[in-house]
Amino acid sequence: MRNFKDSTGLYTDQYELTMAQGYFLSGNETMRSCFDYFFRKNPFNGGYVLFSGLNDLFEALENFRFAHEECIFLASLGFDKRFIEHLKSFSFKGNIYSVHEGEVIFPNEPVVRVEGTIIECQLIESILLNILNFQSLIATKASRMRQASVDKLLYEFGLRRAQGLGAIHASRAAIIGGFDSTSNTYSAFYHKLKSGGTMAHSWVQVFENELEAFRVFVKYNPDTAVLLVDTFDTIKSGIPNAIKVAKEMESKGNRLAGIRLDSGDLAYLSKTARKMLDEAQLHYVKIIASNQLDEHLIKSLNEQNAPINAYGIGTALVTGKDEGALDGVYKIAQINNRSTMKMSENISKMTYPGIKTIYRYYDDSNRFYADGIELLQEDTPEVIYHPYEQENYTDVTPYKKEQILNCVMRNGKNVSGRISVKDISNIASKRLKQLPEEMKRFENPHIYKVGIGEKLKKLQNNTKDKLW
Amino acid sequence: MRNFKDSTGLYTDQYELTMAQGYFLSGNETMRSCFDYFFRKNPFNGGYVLFSGLNDLFEALENFRFAHEECIFLASLGFDKRFIEHLKSFSFKGNIYSVHEGEVIFPNEPVVRVEGTIIECQLIESILLNILNFQSLIATKASRMRQASVDKLLYEFGLRRAQGLGAIHASRAAIIGGFDSTSNTYSAFYHKLKSGGTMAHSWVQVFENELEAFRVFVKYNPDTAVLLVDTFDTIKSGIPNAIKVAKEMESKGNRLAGIRLDSGDLAYLSKTARKMLDEAQLHYVKIIASNQLDEHLIKSLNEQNAPINAYGIGTALVTGKDEGALDGVYKIAQINNRSTMKMSENISKMTYPGIKTIYRYYDDSNRFYADGIELLQEDTPEVIYHPYEQENYTDVTPYKKEQILNCVMRNGKNVSGRISVKDISNIASKRLKQLPEEMKRFENPHIYKVGIGEKLKKLQNNTKDKLW
Repeated sequence: MRNFKDSTGLYTDQYELTMAQGYFLSGNETMRSCFDYFFRKNPFNGGYVLFSGLNDLFEALENFRFAHEECIFLASLGFDKRFIEHLKSFSFKGNIYSVHEGEVIFPNEPVVRVEGTIIECQLIESILLNILNFQSLIATKASRMRQASVDKLLYEFGLRRAQGLGAIHASRAAIIGGFDSTSNTYSAFYHKLKSGGTMAHSWVQVFENELEAFRVFVKYNPDTAVLLVDTFDTIKSGIPNAIKVAKEMESKGNRLAGIRLDSGDLAYLSKTARKMLDEAQLHYVKIIASNQLDEHLIKSLNEQNAPINAYGIGTALVTGKDEGALDGVYKIAQINNRSTMKMSENISKMTYPGIKTIYRYYDDSNRFYADGIELLQEDTPEVIYHPYEQENYTDVTPYKKEQILNCVMRNGKNVSGRISVKDISNIASKRLKQLPEEMKRFENPHIYKVGIGEKLKKLQNNTKDKLW
Repeated sequence: MRNFKDSTGLYTDQYELTMAQGYFLSGNETMRSCFDYFFRKNPFNGGYVLFSGLNDLFEALENFRFAHEECIFLASLGFDKRFIEHLKSFSFKGNIYSVHEGEVIFPNEPVVRVEGTIIECQLIESILLNILNFQSLIATKASRMRQASVDKLLYEFGLRRAQGLGAIHASRAAIIGGFDSTSNTYSAFYHKLKSGGTMAHSWVQVFENELEAFRVFVKYNPDTAVLLVDTFDTIKSGIPNAIKVAKEMESKGNRLAGIRLDSGDLAYLSKTARKMLDEAQLHYVKIIASNQLDEHLIKSLNEQNAPINAYGIGTALVTGKDEGALDGVYKIAQINNRSTMKMSENISKMTYPGIKTIYRYYDDSNRFYADGIELLQEDTPEVIYHPYEQENYTDVTPYKKEQILNCVMRNGKNVSGRISVKDISNIASKRLKQLPEEMKRFENPHIYKVGIGEKLKKLQNNTKDKLW
């Protein structure tokens, strides 16, 4: 359960199947098509998104098939027998071009391009959006918490408040965004993540008194014990008992790993706790803080010099509060040799026609300067135009450039290797360092420049003229 | 994948396992305990929660075991061999008392009570919270949309924006809350829900022109076709083409099921569309609206008399926007024969000690009047006290009463039967009708009266005195 190793074909909006059947029955199943994945608005009023979920998408696509009982179900919905026969032997054999997982991306950039038959491309829409939208949202949120906490340890504690089984992939995305570990044992097992945890209030309540509870806990966890000190009274009872137990541990050659604060004023309590621990010569005992934290509270605690070594974060992280979803979409750009685009009364909702790639430009310090979207196999742009106000353009010739879209799946096979979550997290960290600070600040971040090349501009204007 | 039929034991916060191991190694594994599930704050600034997820919890608990490779993983984390041996033969054999799935519940009520050994009760904490918190959140959100839309059809369209695999259970909860169908084919298959869908912009763009696209679509979907009319221009192109195709269908004895509006001013466009359809004598063609809808927008559209027959709702529903999580917790109330409670500087965060049940009181019209929490096996309360301001009380003797907690699992076996999602949805609808309107309004809903009985009040005060 809880992964993409079983058949994934049915995990789709029904209309994908209805349309695929229509293409099949009308003899259009071999039409070649190209779809783009992009999002429109940065979440959290931020300046970027951290692209995440790609390797799970590979897994989902490699297992994109329909089990026997699922085919029977489709028949019960009225799908045509010939189409169901087609699905029985269906597998995704398309090509995918994408930015690396862990890349920093911006609104309206076609960061994933899917090429295949119209049926292949259509059928995978829902699962692609479901995976990429959610993990990119959470990785982005995690990266903001990483930024706010600077060098503190970050523990993902979200399982109990996560959106059902979304928990599993939230943990993965949290690590990509810069978290150090997860409390979710299944996620750790499945995605090979570092796991950890402390203790609950219930442990303290089960024993006769707090001191006894702490003693039993450290007896069986002599190297890793983190004692939760707020069950009865943090300052009068919890911390003094933790200190007593830490001293007893020292006499046996062990060291208490930490204490956890889970309520009250975390700035005040952490300062008081640090002072009490230090006065007892327990400088090595770490302070872990939890309780409804988000990036803004962490930033505030850091600004108050709260002596907190690690933050445990749940709800705000794993649900992407206050956003809940990244608005990523998947739009057709080419069918056979014809470019196509979605029109809209709102110019910002138009899509880019044709088969495209993205160039990233770097300044002398190797920081991101701008991105340019251009048709594939055209010359690299010399200028990039503002996407709507096309009289505005920027000369990009002085800048180093790199094409950031690469082939990651060919004929339905992953050709980019199996990258560990830790490695993706390192890529993300490196790329975020290259993003100028102005795009990373929480309040009114600067808008990163994303333009379009000359050829794409012409194609968009021509396609629009033909359609209107 | 995507369900609770495989082993579920590892789907837990690691600290549950750490604590369980501690109980096991310290010889405390047979201690009898009792935990309560309750939430503290109504989501969406609303006046109630619709309890959901219970039948999925049964499934998760019936499969609460540890697979071979999961035990190997636990060994790699440093868990003790004797404890892992214990886990290999572990199954949940506790008792669960709960309100019915689909029940209307209120803050601080212990709506689920789990009794078992301390290890049993501790190990299931995370999965219980994960399942109940999320589904109750979404069912509640769905019920608000049902209320706002009155008698319109409601389609759940959220897969692409859902929080990963959370999508599957969001669909189930949406139906419980009053939705008519889901677009998520896997959820429909797995939970036996009604499914449906329309068409995407890509379908229209694949064909030479919109008219051709519509013609091919209705050819293969003569009974169910809903045409998406906003790919190019809703009023100038989409609706006229849909009308043309509907007329062609009539000549073959078929009827166009509907059109879908997915952008622009839905009030204006639906009125214009209705007028155009009616002028073409297509009174039977339904109008479906979608595009970032929530309960407030639906209410507004209804108040504007927008002639919309069905709403398709995604993000706001399946992510529980703007809340993201229900704050449900799981707290120990009794260990062996000792009552226990969590203390807090904030009186509203204290928990209720002891083994309790809930009485619901009804007025003469069979509407909910108040709930009373009291110790089990005591006389039913004659008065219920305000939980914090205990000088305030209400005489409940004039009211009809019912105990709303029932045994649903005994010795780890579901004893409440397998209830279909449709039946749960009917229970929810019936119960919501019994909830007075003042608690259902969106703005500043009235606070439902939840009190505690005499015996519980005494036990809470005694336990507090002993602990402080």
